[in-house]
Amino acid sequence: MKNSKIAVFGLGVMGSPMAQNLVKHGYQTMGYNRSLNRSSALEAAKAGVKVVSSIAEAAENADIILTCVGDEKDVQQLILGSGGIAEYAKPQALIIDCSTIGKTAACELATTLKAKGLRFLDAPVTGGDIGAVNGTLTIMVGGELADFEEALPVFTAIGKKVVHCGLSGSGQAVKLCNQVLCGLHAIAAAEAIQLSKQLGIEPNLVIDVCGSGAAGSWALTNLGPKMSKADFAPGFMVKHLLKDLRLVREAAENGELPGVTLAESLFESIQLLGGEDQGSQAIIRAYGET
Amino acid sequence: MKNSKIAVFGLGVMGSPMAQNLVKHGYQTMGYNRSLNRSSALEAAKAGVKVVSSIAEAAENADIILTCVGDEKDVQQLILGSGGIAEYAKPQALIIDCSTIGKTAACELATTLKAKGLRFLDAPVTGGDIGAVNGTLTIMVGGELADFEEALPVFTAIGKKVVHCGLSGSGQAVKLCNQVLCGLHAIAAAEAIQLSKQLGIEPNLVIDVCGSGAAGSWALTNLGPKMSKADFAPGFMVKHLLKDLRLVREAAENGELPGVTLAESLFESIQLLGGEDQGSQAIIRAYGET
Repeated sequence: MKNSKIAVFGLGVMGSPMAQNLVKHGYQTMGYNRSLNRSSALEAAKAGVKVVSSIAEAAENADIILTCVGDEKDVQQLILGSGGIAEYAKPQALIIDCSTIGKTAACELATTLKAKGLRFLDAPVTGGDIGAVNGTLTIMVGGELADFEEALPVFTAIGKKVVHCGLSGSGQAVKLCNQVLCGLHAIAAAEAIQLSKQLGIEPNLVIDVCGSGAAGSWALTNLGPKMSKADFAPGFMVKHLLKDLRLVREAAENGELPGVTLAESLFESIQLLGGEDQGSQAIIRAYGET
Repeated sequence: MKNSKIAVFGLGVMGSPMAQNLVKHGYQTMGYNRSLNRSSALEAAKAGVKVVSSIAEAAENADIILTCVGDEKDVQQLILGSGGIAEYAKPQALIIDCSTIGKTAACELATTLKAKGLRFLDAPVTGGDIGAVNGTLTIMVGGELADFEEALPVFTAIGKKVVHCGLSGSGQAVKLCNQVLCGLHAIAAAEAIQLSKQLGIEPNLVIDVCGSGAAGSWALTNLGPKMSKADFAPGFMVKHLLKDLRLVREAAENGELPGVTLAESLFESIQLLGGEDQGSQAIIRAYGET
Protein backbone atom coordinates (compact mmCIF):
# COMPACT_ATOMS: atom_id res chain seq x y z
CA MET A 1 0.00 0.00 0.00
CA LYS A 2 3.00 2.31 -0.41
CA ASN A 3 1.09 3.95 -3.26
CA SER A 4 -1.62 5.08 -0.86
CA LYS A 5 -1.78 8.79 -0.38
CA ILE A 6 -2.28 9.68 3.24
CA ALA A 7 -3.61 12.82 4.87
CA VAL A 8 -3.04 13.48 8.55
CA PHE A 9 -5.43 15.94 10.22
CA GLY A 10 -4.09 17.42 13.42
CA LEU A 11 -0.34 18.01 13.50
CA GLY A 12 0.06 18.28 17.25
CA VAL A 13 2.43 16.44 19.58
CA MET A 14 1.01 13.11 18.40
CA GLY A 15 -0.09 13.77 14.81
CA SER A 16 3.07 15.55 13.70
CA PRO A 17 5.52 12.76 14.53
CA MET A 18 3.06 10.18 13.19
CA ALA A 19 2.95 12.05 9.85
CA GLN A 20 6.73 12.29 9.85
CA ASN A 21 7.05 8.54 10.38
CA LEU A 22 4.73 7.95 7.44
CA VAL A 23 7.05 10.07 5.27
CA LYS A 24 10.03 8.06 6.52
CA HIS A 25 8.25 4.88 5.47
CA GLY A 26 7.82 6.20 1.94
CA TYR A 27 4.24 7.39 2.07
CA GLN A 28 3.18 10.48 0.19
CA THR A 29 1.81 12.34 3.20
CA MET A 30 -0.23 15.50 3.43
CA GLY A 31 -0.93 17.30 6.67
CA TYR A 32 -3.54 19.74 7.84
CA ASN A 33 -3.62 21.71 11.06
CA ARG A 34 -6.07 24.42 12.12
CA SER A 35 -3.15 26.67 12.96
CA LEU A 36 -0.38 26.32 10.39
CA ASN A 37 2.10 28.19 12.56
CA ARG A 38 2.08 25.67 15.37
CA SER A 39 5.67 24.53 15.88
CA SER A 40 4.81 20.85 15.55
CA ALA A 41 3.10 21.59 12.20
CA LEU A 42 6.18 23.48 11.00
CA GLU A 43 8.36 20.52 12.02
CA ALA A 44 6.17 18.19 9.99
CA ALA A 45 6.56 20.43 6.94
CA LYS A 46 10.34 20.48 7.41
CA ALA A 47 10.35 16.67 7.55
CA GLY A 48 8.62 16.30 4.19
CA VAL A 49 4.94 16.34 5.07
CA LYS A 50 3.07 18.41 2.49
CA VAL A 51 1.23 20.74 4.83
CA VAL A 52 -1.82 22.31 3.21
CA SER A 53 -4.16 25.03 4.36
CA SER A 54 -7.54 23.60 3.48
CA ILE A 55 -9.43 20.55 4.64
CA ALA A 56 -10.70 20.07 1.11
CA GLU A 57 -7.25 19.90 -0.46
CA ALA A 58 -6.00 17.29 2.01
CA ALA A 59 -9.18 15.21 2.02
CA GLU A 60 -9.89 15.00 -1.68
CA ASN A 61 -6.42 13.71 -2.52
CA ALA A 62 -6.15 11.02 0.15
CA ASP A 63 -6.82 7.27 0.09
CA ILE A 64 -6.33 7.01 3.83
CA ILE A 65 -7.18 9.82 6.23
CA LEU A 66 -5.82 9.91 9.78
CA THR A 67 -7.38 12.24 12.34
CA CYS A 68 -5.55 12.98 15.53
CA VAL A 69 -7.26 15.85 17.31
CA GLY A 70 -9.00 16.38 20.67
CA ASP A 71 -12.25 15.09 22.08
CA GLU A 72 -15.32 13.59 20.42
CA LYS A 73 -16.80 16.99 19.51
CA ASP A 74 -13.59 18.05 17.74
CA VAL A 75 -13.51 14.81 15.77
CA GLN A 76 -17.20 14.99 14.82
CA GLN A 77 -16.82 18.60 13.71
CA LEU A 78 -13.69 17.92 11.68
CA ILE A 79 -15.15 14.90 9.91
CA LEU A 80 -18.90 15.57 9.73
CA GLY A 81 -19.15 19.35 10.21
CA SER A 82 -19.87 21.83 7.45
CA GLY A 83 -16.83 21.91 5.16
CA GLY A 84 -15.49 18.84 6.96
CA ILE A 85 -13.58 15.83 5.72
CA ALA A 86 -16.67 13.79 4.75
CA GLU A 87 -17.71 16.45 2.24
CA TYR A 88 -14.49 16.10 0.27
CA ALA A 89 -13.20 12.56 0.84
CA LYS A 90 -13.00 10.17 -2.14
CA PRO A 91 -15.70 7.50 -2.32
CA GLN A 92 -14.75 4.58 -0.05
CA ALA A 93 -11.86 6.52 1.46
CA LEU A 94 -10.70 4.98 4.76
CA ILE A 95 -10.91 7.40 7.67
CA ILE A 96 -8.92 6.38 10.75
CA ASP A 97 -9.38 8.32 13.95
CA CYS A 98 -6.52 8.09 16.43
CA SER A 99 -8.08 10.37 19.05
CA THR A 100 -9.64 9.01 22.24
CA ILE A 101 -13.36 9.73 21.86
CA GLY A 102 -15.15 6.82 23.55
CA LYS A 103 -17.02 3.86 22.16
CA THR A 104 -20.37 5.55 21.51
CA ALA A 105 -18.96 8.39 19.43
CA ALA A 106 -16.83 5.96 17.42
CA CYS A 107 -19.79 3.72 16.64
CA GLU A 108 -21.89 6.72 15.58
CA LEU A 109 -19.13 7.96 13.30
CA ALA A 110 -18.74 4.54 11.72
CA THR A 111 -22.47 4.29 11.01
CA THR A 112 -22.81 7.82 9.67
CA LEU A 113 -19.76 7.51 7.43
CA LYS A 114 -20.88 4.14 6.09
CA ALA A 115 -24.16 5.77 5.00
CA LYS A 116 -22.06 8.34 3.13
CA GLY A 117 -20.06 5.65 1.31
CA LEU A 118 -16.96 6.10 3.49
CA ARG A 119 -15.13 3.64 5.75
CA PHE A 120 -14.05 4.23 9.34
CA LEU A 121 -11.70 2.67 11.89
CA ASP A 122 -11.35 3.81 15.49
CA ALA A 123 -7.67 3.52 16.34
CA PRO A 124 -6.75 5.24 19.59
CA VAL A 125 -3.11 4.98 20.60
CA THR A 126 -1.00 4.84 23.73
CA GLY A 127 2.69 5.41 24.19
CA GLY A 128 2.73 9.19 24.43
CA ASP A 129 4.71 11.71 22.44
CA ILE A 130 7.84 9.56 22.78
CA GLY A 131 6.04 6.57 21.30
CA ALA A 132 4.74 8.75 18.46
CA VAL A 133 8.25 10.02 17.67
CA ASN A 134 9.85 6.57 17.86
CA GLY A 135 7.03 4.83 16.02
CA THR A 136 6.46 2.53 18.99
CA LEU A 137 2.82 3.35 19.74
CA THR A 138 0.34 0.71 20.80
CA ILE A 139 -2.66 1.02 18.46
CA MET A 140 -6.06 -0.42 19.43
CA VAL A 141 -8.26 -0.76 16.38
CA GLY A 142 -12.00 -1.24 16.01
CA GLY A 143 -13.84 -1.77 12.73
CA GLU A 144 -14.10 -4.17 9.80
CA LEU A 145 -11.25 -6.68 9.67
CA ALA A 146 -10.72 -6.09 5.93
CA ASP A 147 -10.28 -2.36 6.55
CA PHE A 148 -7.89 -3.11 9.41
CA GLU A 149 -5.81 -5.37 7.18
CA GLU A 150 -5.73 -2.76 4.43
CA ALA A 151 -4.46 -0.18 6.90
CA LEU A 152 -1.98 -2.46 8.65
CA PRO A 153 1.13 -1.24 6.78
CA VAL A 154 0.19 2.31 7.76
CA PHE A 155 -0.29 1.29 11.38
CA THR A 156 3.04 -0.53 11.53
CA ALA A 157 4.75 2.61 10.20
CA ILE A 158 3.62 4.53 13.29
CA GLY A 159 3.19 1.82 15.93
CA LYS A 160 4.80 -1.28 17.33
CA LYS A 161 1.92 -3.21 18.86
CA VAL A 162 -1.11 -3.05 16.56
CA VAL A 163 -4.18 -5.01 17.64
CA HIS A 164 -7.55 -5.50 15.98
CA CYS A 165 -9.89 -5.46 18.97
CA GLY A 166 -13.19 -6.15 17.21
CA LEU A 167 -15.93 -4.21 15.47
CA SER A 168 -16.35 -0.43 15.51
CA GLY A 169 -15.84 1.06 18.95
CA SER A 170 -13.71 -1.84 20.20
CA GLY A 171 -10.47 0.09 19.90
CA GLN A 172 -12.02 2.86 21.97
CA ALA A 173 -13.31 0.33 24.52
CA VAL A 174 -9.84 -1.13 25.08
CA LYS A 175 -8.34 2.36 25.25
CA LEU A 176 -10.80 3.33 27.99
CA CYS A 177 -9.76 0.26 30.00
CA ASN A 178 -6.17 1.35 29.49
CA GLN A 179 -6.96 4.78 30.90
CA VAL A 180 -8.66 3.28 33.97
CA LEU A 181 -5.37 1.55 34.70
CA CYS A 182 -3.28 4.67 34.03
CA GLY A 183 -5.43 6.82 36.31
CA LEU A 184 -5.46 4.39 39.20
CA HIS A 185 -1.80 3.42 38.89
CA ALA A 186 -0.86 7.10 39.15
CA ILE A 187 -2.83 7.31 42.40
CA ALA A 188 -1.20 4.12 43.70
CA ALA A 189 2.27 5.48 43.00
CA ALA A 190 1.41 8.86 44.54
CA GLU A 191 0.05 7.32 47.76
CA ALA A 192 3.01 4.95 48.12
CA ILE A 193 5.44 7.84 47.63
CA GLN A 194 3.48 10.09 49.96
CA LEU A 195 3.48 7.38 52.64
CA SER A 196 7.19 6.77 52.21
CA LYS A 197 7.89 10.46 52.84
CA GLN A 198 5.68 10.46 55.93
CA LEU A 199 7.56 7.43 57.24
CA GLY A 200 10.99 8.94 56.54
CA ILE A 201 11.86 6.65 53.65
CA GLU A 202 13.50 7.98 50.48
CA PRO A 203 10.88 7.49 47.71
CA ASN A 204 13.46 6.13 45.26
CA LEU A 205 14.09 3.23 47.64
CA VAL A 206 10.39 2.33 47.47
CA ILE A 207 10.36 2.73 43.68
CA ASP A 208 13.35 0.41 43.40
CA VAL A 209 12.36 -2.25 45.95
CA CYS A 210 8.64 -2.37 45.20
CA GLY A 211 8.95 -1.81 41.46
CA SER A 212 10.59 -5.16 40.76
CA GLY A 213 8.00 -7.39 42.45
CA ALA A 214 4.30 -7.91 42.90
CA ALA A 215 3.81 -4.19 43.55
CA GLY A 216 5.42 -3.14 40.29
CA SER A 217 3.86 -1.00 37.57
CA TRP A 218 4.98 1.09 34.62
CA ALA A 219 3.60 4.12 36.46
CA LEU A 220 5.65 3.51 39.61
CA THR A 221 8.87 3.02 37.65
CA ASN A 222 8.36 5.87 35.18
CA LEU A 223 6.19 8.45 36.94
CA GLY A 224 7.36 7.71 40.49
CA PRO A 225 10.78 9.38 40.12
CA LYS A 226 9.08 12.46 38.60
CA MET A 227 6.62 12.60 41.52
CA SER A 228 9.50 12.25 43.92
CA LYS A 229 11.35 15.28 42.53
CA ALA A 230 8.22 17.31 41.67
CA ASP A 231 8.94 17.24 37.93
CA PHE A 232 5.52 17.82 36.43
CA ALA A 233 6.45 18.29 32.75
CA PRO A 234 4.02 16.32 30.56
CA GLY A 235 4.15 13.26 29.29
CA PHE A 236 0.46 12.78 29.32
CA MET A 237 -1.47 15.86 30.41
CA VAL A 238 -3.90 15.95 33.32
CA LYS A 239 -6.58 17.53 31.11
CA HIS A 240 -6.39 14.69 28.62
CA LEU A 241 -6.61 12.06 31.34
CA LEU A 242 -9.62 13.92 32.78
CA LYS A 243 -11.29 13.84 29.37
CA ASP A 244 -10.63 10.11 29.14
CA LEU A 245 -11.93 9.44 32.66
CA ARG A 246 -15.11 11.33 31.76
CA LEU A 247 -15.49 9.05 28.72
CA VAL A 248 -14.99 6.04 31.03
CA ARG A 249 -17.69 7.29 33.38
CA GLU A 250 -20.09 7.85 30.48
CA ALA A 251 -19.29 4.41 29.06
CA ALA A 252 -19.71 2.63 32.39
CA GLU A 253 -23.17 4.18 32.81
CA ASN A 254 -24.70 2.53 35.83
CA GLY A 255 -21.79 0.21 36.54
CA GLU A 256 -20.13 1.73 39.56
CA LEU A 257 -16.37 2.12 39.30
CA PRO A 258 -15.45 3.78 42.60
CA GLY A 259 -11.75 3.85 41.76
CA VAL A 260 -12.47 5.79 38.58
CA THR A 261 -14.74 8.16 40.52
CA LEU A 262 -11.92 8.80 42.98
CA ALA A 263 -9.41 9.29 40.16
CA GLU A 264 -11.65 11.82 38.46
CA SER A 265 -12.09 13.85 41.65
CA LEU A 266 -8.37 13.79 42.47
CA PHE A 267 -7.32 14.84 38.97
CA GLU A 268 -10.00 17.57 39.05
CA SER A 269 -8.35 18.87 42.21
CA ILE A 270 -5.08 19.15 40.24
CA GLN A 271 -6.92 21.08 37.53
CA LEU A 272 -8.20 23.46 40.21
CA LEU A 273 -4.59 23.96 41.30
CA GLY A 274 -3.84 25.10 37.74
CA GLY A 275 -2.16 21.84 36.77
CA GLU A 276 -4.25 20.77 33.79
CA ASP A 277 -1.31 21.08 31.39
CA GLN A 278 1.01 19.21 33.74
CA GLY A 279 1.74 15.51 33.37
CA SER A 280 -0.43 12.96 35.14
CA GLN A 281 2.32 12.49 37.76
CA ALA A 282 1.15 15.88 39.14
CA ILE A 283 -1.48 13.84 41.01
CA ILE A 284 1.06 13.82 43.86
CA ARG A 285 0.08 17.47 44.39
CA ALA A 286 -3.28 16.26 45.69
CA TYR A 287 -1.37 15.03 48.74
CA GLY A 288 -0.22 18.43 49.89
CA GLU A 289 2.93 18.62 47.80
CA THR A 290 4.35 21.56 45.81
CA MET B 1 27.82 -17.92 59.25
CA LYS B 2 27.02 -21.51 58.28
CA ASN B 3 27.76 -22.44 61.89
CA SER B 4 24.87 -20.30 63.08
CA LYS B 5 22.02 -22.24 64.57
CA ILE B 6 18.71 -20.89 63.41
CA ALA B 7 15.24 -21.24 64.88
CA VAL B 8 12.16 -20.44 62.82
CA PHE B 9 8.99 -19.63 64.76
CA GLY B 10 5.83 -20.04 62.72
CA LEU B 11 5.88 -22.87 60.19
CA GLY B 12 2.98 -21.70 58.05
CA VAL B 13 2.83 -21.17 54.28
CA MET B 14 5.71 -18.70 54.51
CA GLY B 15 7.77 -19.89 57.49
CA SER B 16 7.81 -23.56 56.53
CA PRO B 17 9.39 -23.16 53.08
CA MET B 18 11.77 -20.52 54.48
CA ALA B 19 12.95 -23.01 57.13
CA GLN B 20 13.30 -25.70 54.46
CA ASN B 21 15.45 -23.39 52.31
CA LEU B 22 17.71 -22.74 55.31
CA VAL B 23 18.20 -26.51 55.67
CA LYS B 24 19.01 -26.74 51.96
CA HIS B 25 21.66 -24.06 52.44
CA GLY B 26 23.33 -26.08 55.18
CA TYR B 27 21.98 -24.36 58.25
CA GLN B 28 21.14 -26.35 61.36
CA THR B 29 17.51 -25.27 61.58
CA MET B 30 14.95 -25.75 64.32
CA GLY B 31 11.30 -24.97 63.92
CA TYR B 32 8.45 -24.21 66.27
CA ASN B 33 4.75 -23.97 65.49
CA ARG B 34 1.86 -23.51 67.86
CA SER B 35 0.11 -26.48 66.28
CA LEU B 36 2.61 -29.23 65.44
CA ASN B 37 0.11 -31.10 63.31
CA ARG B 38 -0.27 -28.35 60.75
CA SER B 39 0.59 -29.83 57.35
CA SER B 40 3.16 -27.16 56.57
CA ALA B 41 4.89 -27.92 59.90
CA LEU B 42 4.95 -31.62 59.10
CA GLU B 43 6.46 -30.85 55.69
CA ALA B 44 9.20 -28.84 57.35
CA ALA B 45 10.01 -31.77 59.64
CA LYS B 46 10.13 -34.11 56.66
CA ALA B 47 12.57 -31.75 54.90
CA GLY B 48 15.04 -31.81 57.78
CA VAL B 49 13.87 -28.98 60.03
CA LYS B 50 14.15 -30.09 63.65
CA VAL B 51 10.63 -29.29 64.78
CA VAL B 52 10.38 -28.88 68.55
CA SER B 53 7.39 -28.50 70.83
CA SER B 54 8.55 -25.76 73.16
CA ILE B 55 9.47 -22.13 72.61
CA ALA B 56 12.22 -22.52 75.19
CA GLU B 57 13.95 -25.37 73.39
CA ALA B 58 14.02 -23.58 70.07
CA ALA B 59 14.97 -20.18 71.47
CA GLU B 60 17.75 -21.16 73.86
CA ASN B 61 19.70 -23.05 71.22
CA ALA B 62 19.56 -20.44 68.44
CA ASP B 63 22.00 -17.76 67.35
CA ILE B 64 19.49 -16.33 64.93
CA ILE B 65 15.75 -16.44 65.48
CA LEU B 66 13.26 -15.88 62.66
CA THR B 67 9.61 -15.16 63.47
CA CYS B 68 7.02 -15.47 60.75
CA VAL B 69 3.58 -15.31 62.31
CA GLY B 70 0.53 -13.04 62.03
CA ASP B 71 -0.09 -9.48 63.12
CA GLU B 72 1.71 -7.22 65.58
CA LYS B 73 -0.09 -8.70 68.61
CA ASP B 74 0.93 -12.25 67.65
CA VAL B 75 4.56 -11.16 67.24
CA GLN B 76 4.63 -9.21 70.52
CA GLN B 77 3.08 -12.14 72.39
CA LEU B 78 5.48 -14.67 70.87
CA ILE B 79 8.58 -12.62 71.56
CA LEU B 80 7.76 -10.61 74.70
CA GLY B 81 4.87 -12.54 76.26
CA SER B 82 5.15 -14.75 79.31
CA GLY B 83 7.17 -17.81 78.32
CA GLY B 84 8.09 -16.07 75.08
CA ILE B 85 11.27 -16.03 73.02
CA ALA B 86 12.90 -13.16 74.92
CA GLU B 87 12.84 -15.16 78.15
CA TYR B 88 14.96 -17.92 76.65
CA ALA B 89 17.08 -16.40 73.92
CA LYS B 90 20.87 -16.34 74.32
CA PRO B 91 22.44 -12.99 75.23
CA GLN B 92 22.82 -10.87 72.06
CA ALA B 93 20.81 -13.34 69.98
CA LEU B 94 19.56 -11.77 66.75
CA ILE B 95 15.79 -11.87 66.40
CA ILE B 96 14.48 -11.24 62.89
CA ASP B 97 10.76 -10.75 62.39
CA CYS B 98 9.48 -11.45 58.89
CA SER B 99 5.82 -10.69 59.63
CA THR B 100 4.18 -7.45 58.51
CA ILE B 101 3.48 -5.57 61.75
CA GLY B 102 3.91 -1.86 60.91
CA LYS B 103 6.66 0.58 61.73
CA THR B 104 5.56 1.52 65.25
CA ALA B 105 5.39 -2.05 66.55
CA ALA B 106 8.77 -2.85 64.98
CA CYS B 107 10.43 0.17 66.60
CA GLU B 108 8.94 -0.71 69.97
CA LEU B 109 10.16 -4.29 69.70
CA ALA B 110 13.65 -3.15 68.76
CA THR B 111 13.82 -0.80 71.75
CA THR B 112 12.43 -3.31 74.24
CA LEU B 113 14.70 -6.10 73.05
CA LYS B 114 17.76 -3.88 73.13
CA ALA B 115 17.04 -3.17 76.80
CA LYS B 116 16.98 -6.92 77.35
CA GLY B 117 20.37 -7.40 75.67
CA LEU B 118 18.91 -8.80 72.46
CA ARG B 119 19.15 -7.57 68.89
CA PHE B 120 16.25 -7.10 66.47
CA LEU B 121 15.72 -6.64 62.73
CA ASP B 122 12.37 -6.03 61.07
CA ALA B 123 12.44 -7.95 57.80
CA PRO B 124 9.02 -8.22 56.16
CA VAL B 125 8.95 -10.05 52.85
CA THR B 126 7.03 -10.04 49.60
CA GLY B 127 6.79 -12.63 46.90
CA GLY B 128 4.11 -14.87 48.36
CA ASP B 129 4.17 -18.59 49.05
CA ILE B 130 5.77 -19.21 45.65
CA GLY B 131 8.60 -16.83 46.46
CA ALA B 132 9.07 -18.50 49.84
CA VAL B 133 9.27 -21.96 48.22
CA ASN B 134 11.64 -20.84 45.48
CA GLY B 135 13.78 -18.69 47.77
CA THR B 136 13.05 -15.63 45.64
CA LEU B 137 11.45 -13.38 48.26
CA THR B 138 12.09 -9.67 48.39
CA ILE B 139 13.20 -8.86 51.94
CA MET B 140 13.00 -5.30 53.29
CA VAL B 141 15.16 -4.93 56.36
CA GLY B 142 15.24 -2.29 59.08
CA GLY B 143 17.77 -2.14 61.92
CA GLU B 144 21.49 -1.77 62.63
CA LEU B 145 23.64 -2.19 59.51
CA ALA B 146 26.06 -4.51 61.35
CA ASP B 147 23.19 -6.82 62.31
CA PHE B 148 21.92 -6.73 58.74
CA GLU B 149 25.34 -7.69 57.41
CA GLU B 150 25.63 -10.51 59.91
CA ALA B 151 22.26 -11.88 58.81
CA LEU B 152 22.84 -11.39 55.08
CA PRO B 153 23.82 -15.02 54.34
CA VAL B 154 20.62 -16.13 56.04
CA PHE B 155 18.56 -13.65 54.04
CA THR B 156 20.11 -14.68 50.74
CA ALA B 157 19.23 -18.31 51.54
CA ILE B 158 15.53 -17.41 51.57
CA GLY B 159 15.32 -14.33 49.34
CA LYS B 160 16.58 -12.91 46.08
CA LYS B 161 16.34 -9.15 46.55
CA VAL B 162 17.51 -8.23 50.05
CA VAL B 163 17.62 -4.52 50.88
CA HIS B 164 18.72 -2.69 54.01
CA CYS B 165 16.15 0.13 54.16
CA GLY B 166 17.46 2.00 57.20
CA LEU B 167 17.10 1.91 60.96
CA SER B 168 14.49 -0.11 62.87
CA GLY B 169 11.05 0.12 61.35
CA SER B 170 12.34 0.99 57.87
CA GLY B 171 11.71 -2.47 56.49
CA GLN B 172 8.14 -2.25 57.73
CA ALA B 173 7.77 1.25 56.26
CA VAL B 174 8.80 0.07 52.78
CA LYS B 175 6.56 -2.99 53.10
CA LEU B 176 3.57 -0.77 53.89
CA CYS B 177 4.27 1.29 50.75
CA ASN B 178 4.40 -2.00 48.85
CA GLN B 179 0.97 -2.95 50.17
CA VAL B 180 -0.51 0.40 49.16
CA LEU B 181 0.56 -0.41 45.62
CA CYS B 182 -0.75 -4.00 45.77
CA GLY B 183 -4.14 -2.91 47.08
CA LEU B 184 -4.65 -0.15 44.54
CA HIS B 185 -3.29 -2.13 41.60
CA ALA B 186 -5.80 -4.88 42.35
CA ILE B 187 -8.60 -2.29 42.18
CA ALA B 188 -7.21 -0.87 38.94
CA ALA B 189 -7.13 -4.32 37.33
CA ALA B 190 -10.62 -5.14 38.61
CA GLU B 191 -12.15 -1.92 37.26
CA ALA B 192 -10.44 -2.28 33.89
CA ILE B 193 -11.68 -5.87 33.59
CA GLN B 194 -15.15 -4.93 34.78
CA LEU B 195 -15.31 -2.11 32.20
CA SER B 196 -14.10 -4.40 29.43
CA LYS B 197 -16.92 -6.85 30.18
CA GLN B 198 -19.47 -4.04 30.17
CA LEU B 199 -18.17 -2.89 26.80
CA GLY B 200 -18.19 -6.36 25.28
CA ILE B 201 -14.43 -6.80 25.20
CA GLU B 202 -12.77 -10.09 26.24
CA PRO B 203 -10.76 -9.24 29.40
CA ASN B 204 -7.72 -11.17 28.21
CA LEU B 205 -7.44 -8.80 25.26
CA VAL B 206 -7.23 -5.86 27.68
CA ILE B 207 -4.72 -7.72 29.85
CA ASP B 208 -2.56 -8.41 26.81
CA VAL B 209 -2.80 -5.03 25.06
CA CYS B 210 -2.67 -2.80 28.14
CA GLY B 211 -0.24 -4.97 30.10
CA SER B 212 2.70 -4.32 27.84
CA GLY B 213 2.60 -0.51 27.89
CA ALA B 214 2.12 2.48 30.15
CA ALA B 215 -0.90 0.80 31.78
CA GLY B 216 1.02 -2.32 32.74
CA SER B 217 1.39 -3.75 36.23
CA TRP B 218 2.31 -7.05 37.86
CA ALA B 219 -1.24 -7.18 39.21
CA LEU B 220 -2.86 -6.82 35.79
CA THR B 221 -0.67 -9.51 34.25
CA ASN B 222 -0.82 -11.97 37.15
CA LEU B 223 -4.12 -11.33 38.93
CA GLY B 224 -6.08 -10.13 35.88
CA PRO B 225 -6.45 -13.60 34.29
CA LYS B 226 -7.62 -15.00 37.64
CA MET B 227 -10.18 -12.19 37.99
CA SER B 228 -11.31 -12.85 34.46
CA LYS B 229 -12.08 -16.53 35.13
CA ALA B 230 -13.22 -16.05 38.76
CA ASP B 231 -10.33 -18.10 40.16
CA PHE B 232 -10.08 -16.83 43.71
CA ALA B 233 -7.58 -19.31 45.16
CA PRO B 234 -4.99 -17.45 47.24
CA GLY B 235 -1.98 -16.22 46.52
CA PHE B 236 -2.20 -13.44 49.00
CA MET B 237 -5.29 -13.56 51.16
CA VAL B 238 -7.81 -10.75 51.46
CA LYS B 239 -7.62 -10.89 55.27
CA HIS B 240 -3.87 -10.35 55.22
CA LEU B 241 -4.15 -7.43 52.82
CA LEU B 242 -6.84 -5.95 55.06
CA LYS B 243 -4.51 -6.26 58.05
CA ASP B 244 -1.77 -4.52 56.08
CA LEU B 245 -4.09 -1.73 54.90
CA ARG B 246 -5.11 -1.15 58.52
CA LEU B 247 -1.42 -0.82 59.40
CA VAL B 248 -1.05 1.68 56.53
CA ARG B 249 -3.97 3.73 57.82
CA GLU B 250 -2.54 3.74 61.34
CA ALA B 251 0.90 4.69 60.02
CA ALA B 252 -0.42 7.49 57.83
CA GLU B 253 -2.23 9.04 60.80
CA ASN B 254 -3.55 12.36 59.61
CA GLY B 255 -2.13 12.14 56.11
CA GLU B 256 -5.15 11.40 53.96
CA LEU B 257 -4.69 8.55 51.51
CA PRO B 258 -8.11 8.33 49.83
CA GLY B 259 -7.04 5.47 47.58
CA VAL B 260 -6.08 3.40 50.61
CA THR B 261 -9.38 4.29 52.28
CA LEU B 262 -11.24 3.09 49.20
CA ALA B 263 -9.16 -0.09 49.05
CA GLU B 264 -9.89 -0.87 52.68
CA SER B 265 -13.64 -0.45 52.19
CA LEU B 266 -13.70 -2.54 49.00
CA PHE B 267 -11.68 -5.38 50.54
CA GLU B 268 -13.93 -5.22 53.61
CA SER B 269 -16.88 -5.77 51.32
CA ILE B 270 -15.18 -8.96 50.08
CA GLN B 271 -14.72 -10.06 53.68
CA LEU B 272 -18.45 -9.51 54.23
CA LEU B 273 -19.10 -11.74 51.22
CA GLY B 274 -17.15 -14.49 53.02
CA GLY B 275 -14.04 -14.02 50.90
CA GLU B 276 -11.43 -13.26 53.53
CA ASP B 277 -9.46 -16.43 52.77
CA GLN B 278 -9.63 -15.84 49.02
CA GLY B 279 -6.80 -14.23 47.09
CA SER B 280 -6.70 -10.47 46.66
CA GLN B 281 -7.95 -10.89 43.07
CA ALA B 282 -11.36 -11.58 44.66
CA ILE B 283 -11.73 -7.79 44.74
CA ILE B 284 -13.48 -8.22 41.37
CA ARG B 285 -16.43 -9.58 43.39
CA ALA B 286 -17.02 -6.03 44.64
CA TYR B 287 -18.19 -5.24 41.10
CA GLY B 288 -21.14 -7.58 41.11
CA GLU B 289 -19.30 -10.68 39.99
CA THR B 290 -19.61 -14.28 41.25
